[in-house]
Amino acid sequence: MSEAHDSGQASGAAAAAALAAAVLSGDTRAAARACRLVDDVRPGHAELLAALYERSTASWLIGVTGSPGVGKSTLTSRLVQHFRAQGGRVAVVAVDPSSPFSGGAILGDRIRMQAHWSDPDVFVRSVATRGAHGGLSRTTADIARVLAAWGARVVLIETVGVGQDELDVMRVADTTLVVQAPGAGDDIQAAKAGLLECADVFAVNKADLPGADNVAENLRSMLALGAVTASAAWSAGSRGHSAASLSGAIEQHAASDDWQVPVLPCVATRDEGIEPLVEQLAAHHRWCTGSALGLAQRRERLTEELYGRVREALVIEMLERHRSELDAIAQQVQRGELDPYAATRVLLERWLGRPA
Amino acid sequence: MSEAHDSGQASGAAAAAALAAAVLSGDTRAAARACRLVDDVRPGHAELLAALYERSTASWLIGVTGSPGVGKSTLTSRLVQHFRAQGGRVAVVAVDPSSPFSGGAILGDRIRMQAHWSDPDVFVRSVATRGAHGGLSRTTADIARVLAAWGARVVLIETVGVGQDELDVMRVADTTLVVQAPGAGDDIQAAKAGLLECADVFAVNKADLPGADNVAENLRSMLALGAVTASAAWSAGSRGHSAASLSGAIEQHAASDDWQVPVLPCVATRDEGIEPLVEQLAAHHRWCTGSALGLAQRRERLTEELYGRVREALVIEMLERHRSELDAIAQQVQRGELDPYAATRVLLERWLGRPA
Repeated sequence: MSEAHDSGQASGAAAAAALAAAVLSGDTRAAARACRLVDDVRPGHAELLAALYERSTASWLIGVTGSPGVGKSTLTSRLVQHFRAQGGRVAVVAVDPSSPFSGGAILGDRIRMQAHWSDPDVFVRSVATRGAHGGLSRTTADIARVLAAWGARVVLIETVGVGQDELDVMRVADTTLVVQAPGAGDDIQAAKAGLLECADVFAVNKADLPGADNVAENLRSMLALGAVTASAAWSAGSRGHSAASLSGAIEQHAASDDWQVPVLPCVATRDEGIEPLVEQLAAHHRWCTGSALGLAQRRERLTEELYGRVREALVIEMLERHRSELDAIAQQVQRGELDPYAATRVLLERWLGRPA
Repeated sequence: MSEAHDSGQASGAAAAAALAAAVLSGDTRAAARACRLVDDVRPGHAELLAALYERSTASWLIGVTGSPGVGKSTLTSRLVQHFRAQGGRVAVVAVDPSSPFSGGAILGDRIRMQAHWSDPDVFVRSVATRGAHGGLSRTTADIARVLAAWGARVVLIETVGVGQDELDVMRVADTTLVVQAPGAGDDIQAAKAGLLECADVFAVNKADLPGADNVAENLRSMLALGAVTASAAWSAGSRGHSAASLSGAIEQHAASDDWQVPVLPCVATRDEGIEPLVEQLAAHHRWCTGSALGLAQRRERLTEELYGRVREALVIEMLERHRSELDAIAQQVQRGELDPYAATRVLLERWLGRPA
């Protein structure tokens, strides 16, 4: 049994290495296969991702988020078009369940963007928000890395900006574009508050509609009120114990180094205002990769990702090892012999011993 | 040090016991204090909750969810009014960040519902969707239990029905009321799909507006299409390894025992249709507590909660114990000496040993 298991693992690792090589050579079918392997957390997925990691760090991850109805998908499609015109491959990871890109995640098969269907240098992949093994943001990061290793210079991640899981996805991105529009999503102010914090660039879409100027004005006022840049606060708030070191970095570099969040009007359906938007996104990318604060944020994101992966792996491994014990104690809770709080304490003491 | 630590723990436990006694006597200030203790995961919170657990199992948790703008808060307020008219205490836990009830979670202090401000037998508590220690659904379950132990016969949990975290909150409830309205949230079909699955009762609010009949008709068609009741499917899908046993239960009892999800029109602002809605909610509660399938669902929820608590406690404890090691390896990842996948594997093998 043990030998069969080992050889199974070994062949899994060999298959992963072969698949990684194919992805790195730019093979689109291999990339699609790698995405499925990663999404389903099949054997060899960690080896595959480790093999793709170094190459993937060179690419640029742009998150596109906003309330339902602001036109994220149309804008994403325009961005694909503009980045393609600059040359190089482009990928889209659609996490937004309402996005036409992600139809597949809901309907059971995958559809590609109509406009880019015939372009072999555009890869579109949806990520299901439900039933994903492990956290949504981890799956998204993994898929984005596969597509980066396949050769995507830019990976656009589209997600709906409502819900904590969905917002967490934005932490994966180097640059976060928050899309707003007049008249849309005004009743979810709180979601907006979360969105404000994570924005590196704001686009006010449907800028030809009445009220667009107001939306832009409001955003600028809110940004002006913030003492530090929104993205610095976002990053500092993400993990308690490093907030101090980052706020030190913010103070040191505030004057010279800060990223000022721009607000840009556009009309995605008519391809208006997209060029200046792309320019601002590129400016943020240069800031990310060339400034002390930008680099500090990137390191911070990486650490946060590691924490997330360790948490997840720990839980999966421990629950796997102790499943029968857990089931037995669950029975006791169901029969009312034990409350869930005591049951948790009992299990933890058995598994880890009393705290030192 | 160890003695001081022990005596600190002992006095924490003694304080928790005193607080639990005060909550169980119906003291409102004690309940407020207990909510804060639980929300902040302060020492003694587990002991407090264990002491309140038995009494809390008698109360009825109703989840109220739906897309932004459908009028959840107004309807919740009406339900409070009707349940109060029946006698006994009522509590509201507002998880929806856009709810006027939960203003406090965002603005930093707590506001009570205007209409029930002066009623000492109504308790309103908001739960922050951001920065909550541990999962949102666990915090909600804990707060609901405190308020049940305080004497609430009914605890209403209001949450926005978008986002996975927010939907998970509904698993805490005995009865889930999904609110829909004409013209609202039509662009978030996918969120609706998630909502459909978890509904025990549908309310079509704003039934005086055009299109309300269509909304109700669509819901009824979708329900008719389902082979099993929506809530049974929801429950069965929640945790893989017990789906088989539950679907066994479904088959056995399908004919006699199934809950048929009703669709009820109402106009919350005018207090129309609330009485029939309350009656259907009560019918579901009788089904929950009196039928084999209802009781199986309740056991299932409890097991799921236990799993969640164990996962959380495990992560907190392990990361606490190994923080310096984790930080050291995070540095290596930041310097590019190690990829996050290899780093995770290394840590897990160190902490848990190789899998047997």
